[in-house]
Amino acid sequence: MKIDLNADVGEGFGAYEWGSDDILLQTVSSANIACGFHAGDPHTMRKAVEACLAAGTAIGAHPGLPDRLGFGRREMAVSSEEAGDIVLYQIGALQGFVNALGGRLRHVKLHGALYHMAAKEEELALSVAGAVHALDPQLLLYGLPGSRLAEAALKLGLRYVAEGFTDRAYAEDGSLVPRRQPGAVLERTEEMVSQALSLARRGRFETLCVHGDTPQAAEHARKIAESLRAAGIAIAPPEATKTEFVE
Amino acid sequence: MKIDLNADVGEGFGAYEWGSDDILLQTVSSANIACGFHAGDPHTMRKAVEACLAAGTAIGAHPGLPDRLGFGRREMAVSSEEAGDIVLYQIGALQGFVNALGGRLRHVKLHGALYHMAAKEEELALSVAGAVHALDPQLLLYGLPGSRLAEAALKLGLRYVAEGFTDRAYAEDGSLVPRRQPGAVLERTEEMVSQALSLARRGRFETLCVHGDTPQAAEHARKIAESLRAAGIAIAPPEATKTEFVE
Amino acid sequence: MKIDLNADVGEGFGAYEWGSDDILLQTVSSANIACGFHAGDPHTMRKAVEACLAAGTAIGAHPGLPDRLGFGRREMAVSSEEAGDIVLYQIGALQGFVNALGGRLRHVKLHGALYHMAAKEEELALSVAGAVHALDPQLLLYGLPGSRLAEAALKLGLRYVAEGFTDRAYAEDGSLVPRRQPGAVLERTEEMVSQALSLARRGRFETLCVHGDTPQAAEHARKIAESLRAAGIAIAPPEATKTEFVE
Amino acid sequence: MKIDLNADVGEGFGAYEWGSDDILLQTVSSANIACGFHAGDPHTMRKAVEACLAAGTAIGAHPGLPDRLGFGRREMAVSSEEAGDIVLYQIGALQGFVNALGGRLRHVKLHGALYHMAAKEEELALSVAGAVHALDPQLLLYGLPGSRLAEAALKLGLRYVAEGFTDRAYAEDGSLVPRRQPGAVLERTEEMVSQALSLARRGRFETLCVHGDTPQAAEHARKIAESLRAAGIAIAPPEATKTEFVE
Repeated sequence: MKIDLNADVGEGFGAYEWGSDDILLQTVSSANIACGFHAGDPHTMRKAVEACLAAGTAIGAHPGLPDRLGFGRREMAVSSEEAGDIVLYQIGALQGFVNALGGRLRHVKLHGALYHMAAKEEELALSVAGAVHALDPQLLLYGLPGSRLAEAALKLGLRYVAEGFTDRAYAEDGSLVPRRQPGAVLERTEEMVSQALSLARRGRFETLCVHGDTPQAAEHARKIAESLRAAGIAIAPPEATKTEFVE
Repeated sequence: MKIDLNADVGEGFGAYEWGSDDILLQTVSSANIACGFHAGDPHTMRKAVEACLAAGTAIGAHPGLPDRLGFGRREMAVSSEEAGDIVLYQIGALQGFVNALGGRLRHVKLHGALYHMAAKEEELALSVAGAVHALDPQLLLYGLPGSRLAEAALKLGLRYVAEGFTDRAYAEDGSLVPRRQPGAVLERTEEMVSQALSLARRGRFETLCVHGDTPQAAEHARKIAESLRAAGIAIAPPEATKTEFVE
Repeated sequence: MKIDLNADVGEGFGAYEWGSDDILLQTVSSANIACGFHAGDPHTMRKAVEACLAAGTAIGAHPGLPDRLGFGRREMAVSSEEAGDIVLYQIGALQGFVNALGGRLRHVKLHGALYHMAAKEEELALSVAGAVHALDPQLLLYGLPGSRLAEAALKLGLRYVAEGFTDRAYAEDGSLVPRRQPGAVLERTEEMVSQALSLARRGRFETLCVHGDTPQAAEHARKIAESLRAAGIAIAPPEATKTEFVE
Repeated sequence: MKIDLNADVGEGFGAYEWGSDDILLQTVSSANIACGFHAGDPHTMRKAVEACLAAGTAIGAHPGLPDRLGFGRREMAVSSEEAGDIVLYQIGALQGFVNALGGRLRHVKLHGALYHMAAKEEELALSVAGAVHALDPQLLLYGLPGSRLAEAALKLGLRYVAEGFTDRAYAEDGSLVPRRQPGAVLERTEEMVSQALSLARRGRFETLCVHGDTPQAAEHARKIAESLRAAGIAIAPPEATKTEFVE
């Protein structure tokens, strides 16, 4: 058995630092690098790509809405066409660094509000998936299972990687428990570890998201990785070709 | 005989329009597309790439300083490393659109203050040329002849394309007459046409810059192109391999 | 009889120009100056304030969402508290110029998506009106009649000025015909002139919005002003204290 | 004897935190609040003003260059007129919050590269000082003694407050030892405390700058304040009217 662990990195900006990329990169198998819209900047992106290459972590682009002040977390009424274009711009920019440094861009994971908009809005999902496909049909697209974005990827022949969250509770039907409900967000290490093991074994997800925006979060990530390995579950990036899962 | 005519395009931003790209693209052989820092944005870039592909114009990246308010015209004390990174980011972003739309990025021309900084500052020139080379050693680099950037390109084995200005007076020694001196900037159509013919025949320049930021400027560009053709000078993008010039 | 004509000015940005402020300022009695978020910048704001003072036009702040790329026209999920803060910031910045140049800030009109959000969302409307009131309770607030913002102003004791649109059709119940419906947007000069006369006479509106973002629009504005005057309707900014209207 | 201690606060941005404002505000007598160009944003500014009012700290504006990526530390070739306008914009924006929250803006201290440009460039210094004066001639202007900005303030009748640095070495002639020279930057707590005592007693400076961008820096600031008080030197903001100092 195997699973991918992914984390967002390179989310600093200029003089501002963010998160614990060093610890995370010793832990995860995929890193999603911010591309300069919601977070990140050219210099930070270069450093993040260099760190991923040094750590041997699979490199992905993490494009967001053009809202640095809101860290890309506020929905904006961008048109589908604009969404595709801002995603293409950001992936291209990151790909420049990855190629220049001798690496290979493997995946794309949308950030924040854009992640959720692409899960819900069909036309926007198609535009974004189309941008990814036009740039490189070999890119993997990470996102919510059963979402509009998953459907768009399927339609375009883009390899979609279903993502689960180690710090979120799931309802019986497999959907995320809304944040407002009590118990929706897991906070204790043991809960997260247990959730990670459960999600990995269920086989519905190919990648699990871990956070690193606080020292504590990075520590959780490390514990989750240890527990998965101890349970005989390998941590590795998704294959380019979908492996078959049995539920 | 042949020469390249280049112009900056895609320099609008959001709701703001800039210049007369349509007329220019019927006139020039190379277009330098703004990349979202001093001007341009993802949607504008896509439109500019589409227009270049439709017109058959050679596509180049036109990266500038991160100073949209100043249109990239104000020098900023960026470090050499930062300069290389902001250039790499912007070229990558444009390359994303060009590749996704089935074209090929052929050249890079720096914008405004960055153009002049790279002509004067050795370390910065090396960093910028290194970024271009790392991304794609086949990219042509347009710039001032005899500059630090020309030397940096030579050092790295990057093909450098010497650029002349149809609206600027040149001194005996081949340098530009400083803007403050009387007669430094040519304003009448006939002067520019005559300057273009003279520069094209002198053989020192492989590309001539024309402007299109006013309807009048675009009209000048058209007249210059007509006069060159009438004089038997073909207008075509530079070859990937340097052609030999005889002075 | 009298009515106010208002227009947005100072919506350029850096090297980008926008609209026909000169013509507009000879026409309108109130100018809403962009404050550097959706459009405008410090230098453009100073020029706009100087032009208003020279023309004797009443000066208002025109704050928008922090979305320069979208010209403040895209709704963003800002919190009510954030909305109040971005409005306060922008009005303060403009007030700096107005005070420094010896003028007086008289009114506030929200821009684009923020204008519509404040008309619909009660909590946001209260936050924005509260910010205006905290800064200066003498400021007039322009906006849609019957909106959440109108209610918030009433609650706080802020003088609210109901705004009508000379280029939009109104339904029987006084609401704007939605843009998607045929005939919603008036395009011919005579229609707008006739609409302006009708709205001014109806007495429901104290100010009418005219546009100036194209030379044609500025010409429409001039015609509207002429026709109002010819019909014996004076064009003047709203009084600080509400005048009584009879329908 | 008395002296002012000042520190920069409110230098976070959106989701990014910066420094230890809480500790600093228990220590200093003057706070310089970032105004949204090099750092800070409307929400952060409100919080900083509220914190200053709660702590009883004198409030100043801390305007910087429009270079968020570079934290306002990179010189930019802004014109004198642009410099005055960007300063006026930022002070006005902060003044909006201060007035709305019932406080009073007392001083202005330029940030980073703009601080140094205004110390060296006569025309820019006059433009900046003129902007401050036009907004409110009662505002105090903090800066380097003997600088172009000091001269500009004198010329305009603006009260200038000479600033010293507790973590920098001074040459015999009273100038700062350039950063590149060994020993230019003091790093040990005792050195700073000793420097603060020496500067306070020398009488040449009315305010001393302390830093808070690291927990350690905030701790240094606290130690400096304690030592000054223990030495019988009161810590208080500068008077509006210059007090006489005896060297």
